[in-house]
Amino acid sequence: MKKTFLFSLLILSFVSQAQQNLIQYVKPIIGTEKMGHTYPGATVPFGAVQLSPETDTISYEINGKYNGDVYKYCAGYKYEDKTIVGFSHTHLSGTGHSDLGDFLIMPTQGKLQLNPGTAANPKSGYRSSYSHANEVAEAGYYKVKLDDDNILAEMTATTRVGMHQYTFPKSDESHIILDLMAGIYNYDEKDVWTYVRVVNDTLITGYRQTNGWARTRTVYFAMSFSKPFTEYGQKNYDDKQAYRGFWRKFDQLKNFPEIAGKKIRMYFDFKTEEAEIIKIKFALSSVSQENALQNMQAEIKDWNFEKVKAQAQTSWNKELNKIAITASEDTKVNFYTAMYHTFINPTVYTDVNGQYKGLDQDVHQANGFTNYSTFSLWDTYRALHPFFNIIQPSRNNDMVKSMVAHYDQSALHMLPIWSHYSNDNWCMSGYHSVSVIADAIIKGVYNGDENQALEACITTAKHRNYEGIGYYMDLGYIPAEKSGVSVSNTLEYAYDDWCIAQIAKKLNKTAVYDEFIKRSENWKNNYNAATGFMQPKMANGTFKKEFDPLSTEGQGFIEGNSWNYSFFAPQDPATLIAKMGGKKTFAARLDTLFSMHLPDSFFEHTEDITREGIIGGYVHGNEPAHHVAYFYNWANQPWKTQAQVRKILDMQYKPSPDGLGGNDDCGQMSAWYIFSSLGFYPVAPGSDEYAIGSPLVNNAVLTLENGNQFKVNVINQSPKNVYVQKVLLDGKTVTDFVLKHKSITDGGTLTFYMGSKPKK
Amino acid sequence: MKKTFLFSLLILSFVSQAQQNLIQYVKPIIGTEKMGHTYPGATVPFGAVQLSPETDTISYEINGKYNGDVYKYCAGYKYEDKTIVGFSHTHLSGTGHSDLGDFLIMPTQGKLQLNPGTAANPKSGYRSSYSHANEVAEAGYYKVKLDDDNILAEMTATTRVGMHQYTFPKSDESHIILDLMAGIYNYDEKDVWTYVRVVNDTLITGYRQTNGWARTRTVYFAMSFSKPFTEYGQKNYDDKQAYRGFWRKFDQLKNFPEIAGKKIRMYFDFKTEEAEIIKIKFALSSVSQENALQNMQAEIKDWNFEKVKAQAQTSWNKELNKIAITASEDTKVNFYTAMYHTFINPTVYTDVNGQYKGLDQDVHQANGFTNYSTFSLWDTYRALHPFFNIIQPSRNNDMVKSMVAHYDQSALHMLPIWSHYSNDNWCMSGYHSVSVIADAIIKGVYNGDENQALEACITTAKHRNYEGIGYYMDLGYIPAEKSGVSVSNTLEYAYDDWCIAQIAKKLNKTAVYDEFIKRSENWKNNYNAATGFMQPKMANGTFKKEFDPLSTEGQGFIEGNSWNYSFFAPQDPATLIAKMGGKKTFAARLDTLFSMHLPDSFFEHTEDITREGIIGGYVHGNEPAHHVAYFYNWANQPWKTQAQVRKILDMQYKPSPDGLGGNDDCGQMSAWYIFSSLGFYPVAPGSDEYAIGSPLVNNAVLTLENGNQFKVNVINQSPKNVYVQKVLLDGKTVTDFVLKHKSITDGGTLTFYMGSKPKK
Repeated sequence: MKKTFLFSLLILSFVSQAQQNLIQYVKPIIGTEKMGHTYPGATVPFGAVQLSPETDTISYEINGKYNGDVYKYCAGYKYEDKTIVGFSHTHLSGTGHSDLGDFLIMPTQGKLQLNPGTAANPKSGYRSSYSHANEVAEAGYYKVKLDDDNILAEMTATTRVGMHQYTFPKSDESHIILDLMAGIYNYDEKDVWTYVRVVNDTLITGYRQTNGWARTRTVYFAMSFSKPFTEYGQKNYDDKQAYRGFWRKFDQLKNFPEIAGKKIRMYFDFKTEEAEIIKIKFALSSVSQENALQNMQAEIKDWNFEKVKAQAQTSWNKELNKIAITASEDTKVNFYTAMYHTFINPTVYTDVNGQYKGLDQDVHQANGFTNYSTFSLWDTYRALHPFFNIIQPSRNNDMVKSMVAHYDQSALHMLPIWSHYSNDNWCMSGYHSVSVIADAIIKGVYNGDENQALEACITTAKHRNYEGIGYYMDLGYIPAEKSGVSVSNTLEYAYDDWCIAQIAKKLNKTAVYDEFIKRSENWKNNYNAATGFMQPKMANGTFKKEFDPLSTEGQGFIEGNSWNYSFFAPQDPATLIAKMGGKKTFAARLDTLFSMHLPDSFFEHTEDITREGIIGGYVHGNEPAHHVAYFYNWANQPWKTQAQVRKILDMQYKPSPDGLGGNDDCGQMSAWYIFSSLGFYPVAPGSDEYAIGSPLVNNAVLTLENGNQFKVNVINQSPKNVYVQKVLLDGKTVTDFVLKHKSITDGGTLTFYMGSKPKK
Repeated sequence: MKKTFLFSLLILSFVSQAQQNLIQYVKPIIGTEKMGHTYPGATVPFGAVQLSPETDTISYEINGKYNGDVYKYCAGYKYEDKTIVGFSHTHLSGTGHSDLGDFLIMPTQGKLQLNPGTAANPKSGYRSSYSHANEVAEAGYYKVKLDDDNILAEMTATTRVGMHQYTFPKSDESHIILDLMAGIYNYDEKDVWTYVRVVNDTLITGYRQTNGWARTRTVYFAMSFSKPFTEYGQKNYDDKQAYRGFWRKFDQLKNFPEIAGKKIRMYFDFKTEEAEIIKIKFALSSVSQENALQNMQAEIKDWNFEKVKAQAQTSWNKELNKIAITASEDTKVNFYTAMYHTFINPTVYTDVNGQYKGLDQDVHQANGFTNYSTFSLWDTYRALHPFFNIIQPSRNNDMVKSMVAHYDQSALHMLPIWSHYSNDNWCMSGYHSVSVIADAIIKGVYNGDENQALEACITTAKHRNYEGIGYYMDLGYIPAEKSGVSVSNTLEYAYDDWCIAQIAKKLNKTAVYDEFIKRSENWKNNYNAATGFMQPKMANGTFKKEFDPLSTEGQGFIEGNSWNYSFFAPQDPATLIAKMGGKKTFAARLDTLFSMHLPDSFFEHTEDITREGIIGGYVHGNEPAHHVAYFYNWANQPWKTQAQVRKILDMQYKPSPDGLGGNDDCGQMSAWYIFSSLGFYPVAPGSDEYAIGSPLVNNAVLTLENGNQFKVNVINQSPKNVYVQKVLLDGKTVTDFVLKHKSITDGGTLTFYMGSKPKK
C-alpha cells in the first residue's frame, strides 16, 4: 500500500507543477544513426551515469592494425546494428573519439556463455538480436526486448545510479552477466586492473581501472540485486599472476568473493518464474566502493523502478520547461531533443558526500560546488556554455569552478583542454577554458575569485611548451615547420587571448589587457592578403608554398580547411572583413562558401566530416565555422544570415535516428540549434552580445533562474517566411541585429516580424 | 646555531635516559648471506619504510622459465654480491617468498644510464660496484660507498619516511635515478600502473601499483629533494597507450610533470660541487599522495640527516633496553640483533592521520589503534607474537585489532593467513591468526571485544571451502586424495582449534569449547599407531600406502617431513607421548630425530631447508618443529631439552652475515633465540605456560610496559654448564619446568643454577 501511495503522490506532484509534458518531444534515438554519435539509453540531466545499450564491442585494433570502425562506436550504439551486446553505465554523448562503456550487464538464459559472440551469430555468445519495433528510448528511460532469450530489458537512472529491470521467462538457468573487460574503444592494453568483492548474495562492489582516452582512470561501483543469486562465478581472461597462492587455496572460478585481475567477466545465476522481474541498482563513484554504495543508498532507497523512472522523467521535464516553445511538431522534437542533448554533458563528478578524484589522482572535497567532468571544450565553448549562461547559470558557475579546481590540481599548471574523469585527454586545440571562463565572468555568472580565474587563464596561455605557444608568443604565429596545425592553433589562441583581455578589462588589469589584446590580433599573421586565405607561414616569414584552401590535410588546420577556418576571427569581424576586401567582397565569399560544390575526393581524406554535414563548402558537421552564417550581419546582408541559418536548421537537424549531420559533440551541435531556432547566436563568447538571425519557433518563453522570463515572439512565421522584416526588443526596433545578454537576463520580449522576401 | 643546539639536545636526551648503548650489538648484516633473507638497510621499530640496498634485480622468469635465483633475493640484498643496483623503500625481513622493493633510487654521475646494467659489467648501467670494507649497517642507519662513481650513500628512516644522503664528487652531470619498474620478485606483469607528478623542482608525488605476492597493491609516495634539480625526465618501457594525445601535445620525455604508464624510469639532474650532499626524503602511504606528503611533513620537518639518524637509533635503543642482559659479546650481538629482527615486522600500516587502505581496498580510519600489516602468521604465531605479549603488549594488542579489522573487511569472512599490504597472499597453511588472538586473550593483552574476536576465529575455522576444512570438519582429517598437504593441515587446524577452545573457555562459551576441543583432537586421525608416524590417510580411512617419513615431497606435509611433523601436537604432548609408546620411547625418538644423518638427496628435493638449518634430522631452519626440543620436558628428561636448546642456540645463530641457518621469517627464528636464551619457550601459544629450558645469558632484566621487571639470574653459567641443576621462581623451587605468564608480568626473578652434568 505504501508503495502505491508514494507513487501516486509522485504522479500528482508531476502534474501539479503545471508544467507542460515536454519529454514527449525528446527522442534520444535522434543522432544514433550515422554521424551523430549520441546514445539512446537512460540518464538524468548532467548525470554521472549513462545507462545505455552497446550494439557492438569494437576493438581498436584487428590483427595489430587500426580498426576504422571503432570511430563509429563512440557512444556504443549504432542504430544500424541488429544485435545488442549489453548495457553499460558510462557513455560519451556525440563525441568524435570513443571511451567509457564501463560495467556491461547482460541478462541471458540457458547455457551460460561468457563471451559476447558475434553480430553475425549472436547466439554464439551472450549478445542478443533485437528489433527497433520492440525498443523504446525516452528521456530517462530505455526499454528493449532481447529476442534471443525473450527477456525484456528496461533501464532508468538517477544522477549516480543506474537501475535495471529485467523480465525473464521461466527458467532454472537465468543469468546476469557482468562483463568487466568490455569497453568502448577497447584494445588489449586498455584494461589495467579490475577488483571485485561479492559482499553477500545481493551486493557486489569493486572497481575498474583503464588506460584509454583518459590515461589513468578508475571507476568504482556498487551493484545490488533485488533477488539473491544462487551461484556466481568468473573467468579471468588474462591470468598472468606470478603468485598463485589464491589458486592453490580456493576454487576462484565459482562462488569465490574476492576477485581481481586484468580481464574479468562474471556471471550470476538465478531461477526465475514466468515473467519474473529481477532489478539491479548500479552506482558509480570516482572515489571508492564505499562512496558508490553511499551514492546508491542516498539516491535509490527501495526497489520501485517506476518511481525512479518517474523521478528521472520529472527532472528532465523540469529542465525542458525552462524553455516553452510553440512550433511545428517536428521542430518541437528537434528542439527538445536538442535541449536534452545539451543537458547531458558535462557530467556530475562529485559523489553525494561531495568527494571526487582530482586531476592529481587524489581525493578532493568540493566545497560549495558540484564538480563536473566531461568538458569537450573545443566544441562546447562556442554555444553550449553560452547557452548555460542563460539557462543553467548555477551549473555553469560550478563548471567554471571545476575548471579552476582542475587547474589547481594540474602539475602542468594548465586549465582543462578536454577534462575527462580525473584526466585531461588533451583532445583538439586551443585553450578554450578561457573562453568559457571569460563568458561566465563577463555575463556575471561566475561567483568565484575572478582574479584567481584570470591568473589560471594567463598561466595556461603562457605555457610555452604546449602546442607551439612559445613560437606563438615569440613570433605571433606558429611556424608551419613546427606544427601540422599551425594555422588553426594561431587563430584559436588569438580568439582565446581576446577572451583573456575581456576578463582583464573587467578587472581593470590594464597591463594584462594590453598584452592579450595585442596577442588577440595574431590571427592577422596567418592571413595572406594575396590569396585572401589564412595560410601556414614558415619560420622565415614567408607563406608555405603548396597550399590548397579546400584540403583538410597538411594545410595547418585541425579538422577543417582554410575555406572554413579563414573566417575564424570571431573577436574582430570588422577587421577580418576589411582585410578580405570590404563588406561586399566578404559577403560574396560567404556566398561562395555556402554554394560551392565539393568533389568526392574531399570526403575521402577528411576525418569527422561527411557530405551530410556540409552545405556547399560550409561544414556544419564540425565546429570551426559554426559562427560563420552569422557573419553576413557584419557585411550588411543580414538577410543572408537569416536564409542560411534557416537552411542549416532545416538541413542539418531532422527528427530521425540519422537526424544529426555531424557529431553532436557533447551538445555543441544541439546548442547551435537551440540558439538559432530562438533567433540569436553567441558569435564571440566572452562578449555580452548575440547576433540576431532568423528564429524557427513561433514563440518561446525562457524562464530564467533569477525568476525573469525572456520571450521570443515571431509574427508571420512560416517555412518560407525566413526573412526578418523587423525585430523589436520590448517594443523598440533593433537595427544592428545585436541582442545584449542583459536584455535577456532582465526579462523582456524580442519580437520578430517575418516575411518571405529579404528586407534589404 | 639552532640546528647544532637541537642536535646537542638530542644527544643529551639520548644519554640522559640512562639506558645502555645496545644498538652497538645490533648487526643488521647478520642473516644477509645464504639463508637468512634479512636486509641490511635502515628502518625503525615496526617501521613502514625499510630503506635498503638491492644487490640484484632478479626476474621471476628467464626466457619463460622460472628463475630459481629469485628465491635468494627475498630481501633484495645478498652479501655474496659485488654490486648494488640501488636503494628501495620496502623490504620483507627473512621471508621465504619475495616481493616489494618499491621505488628504487640510485645516484650516478657522467653519462645518464637508465638501465640497471649487469652484475658482471656494472658500468653498463646505473648500478655500481661496492665493497663490504666501505659498508656500515647499523640499526636505523646504512652507509656504503658506491665505487663506480665514487658516491657515498647514507640512509636512515622514520616510521613512514626514508631519508637518503648522497655525497657526490664535483660534476656537471650528477643524476639521481628513480626506477619505478624495479622490484623484488619482478616479472613482466608485475607492474600494473605507475603515476607520477612533478609538483615542483624539489617535490615529486605519485604511486606504484603492482600485482605480485600481494595481488592488488598500490603504494603512494612523496619524494622531496634538498636541492632543486636542473632537469628531469623519464622513459616509458611499456608504451602501449592507444590514445596518443599526450605525445602529440608535449615532449613527455623531458621536464614533463605528469607521467603515467606501466613501466617507468625517471632521472633528475644536478650540478654538484666536490663533496656536495644531496638529500632525499621519501615518504610512503597506502592511501594517497596527499597522505604520503603529510607523513613526510609530520615525521621529518627539516633536512638534518644526523638528527633523523639519531632519532632512529634512539628509538631502537629504547626498544632494545626493554631487555638488559649480561652475556658474552657474541651472545649480546646475537641476542640484540635477534631483538632487532623481531621488532621489524609486522609493520605499521596507518598513516600519521590514522588512515589506511583495508583488505577491501577502501580507505579506513583506525580508531584507537595502529593498523599493522606484514603478518607471516604460519611462522610468527609460534614465538614472535608470544614474545610481543611479554615485551610489546600494546603493539600486539593493536596487531590483534588489525587482524580483526582484516576479518571485518574480508568478503571471505576470514582472519588473515598472511596479511600483506591490504591483501592476503594466502601463503602457508593453518589459520594461525586464532593462535595469536587466543594467546593475547588468554594472557590478558587484548582489550578489544573478545566475543567479536572469538566469532571471527570460529567463522574462519568453519570456512569449508578453504584448504580442506570441509573434509576436516566432516571426517576429522583431510583425505590424501584431496590435498597434497593433508596431514600438516589437519595437525595445524587441530592445534588452532584448541586455541579457539581456550578463548571459548575463558568466555564461558561451553558449546563452542566442546565443539573445538573435540576438533583439537583431530591430529590423532593422522597418527598411524603401526608406524608411530603422522601419515596421510585416504578417504576410505586407510593410510596411504607409499610413505617415507624423511621425504618432504608428496607425503602430505608443507615444508617439512613426517619425522618433524609427527611431533606436532603442542596442545597435547601427554597424549602424543602416550600414543608414541610412553615417555621413554618418546624420548628415544627425539634422540633419533636430533642425531640421525640425512642423505644429501634429502636436500636436493627440499625447499627452504639446507644442511645449515639442520641438526640430525631436526629442522630448525624451518618452523614446524620449533617446539620439539622442549618436548623432552614432558618425557621426564628435561636435561635433554637443556642440551638440545643450547646446541641449537650455538649452532643455528652466529654473529656473522651467514649467521642464520634458515629464513628469519619475519622474526620467528629470532624470537626463538630470545626465548631460549632467556631459558623458557611458549610451546603452545594459547596457554599461559612456558616450558623451561637452559638459558644462554648470565643475567637478564625484562622491563615490562606495566612497570614491573622480570629478572633471569643464571648462576654458574658457562658454555659447558648447559644443564639446569635447580631453578627457583622468587626463591621457590620450580619442579615441573613450567613458568606461568603471570609470574612474568607480576615481576619477579627466575634463578637458574647451572652445571656441566645433567640433573636427572
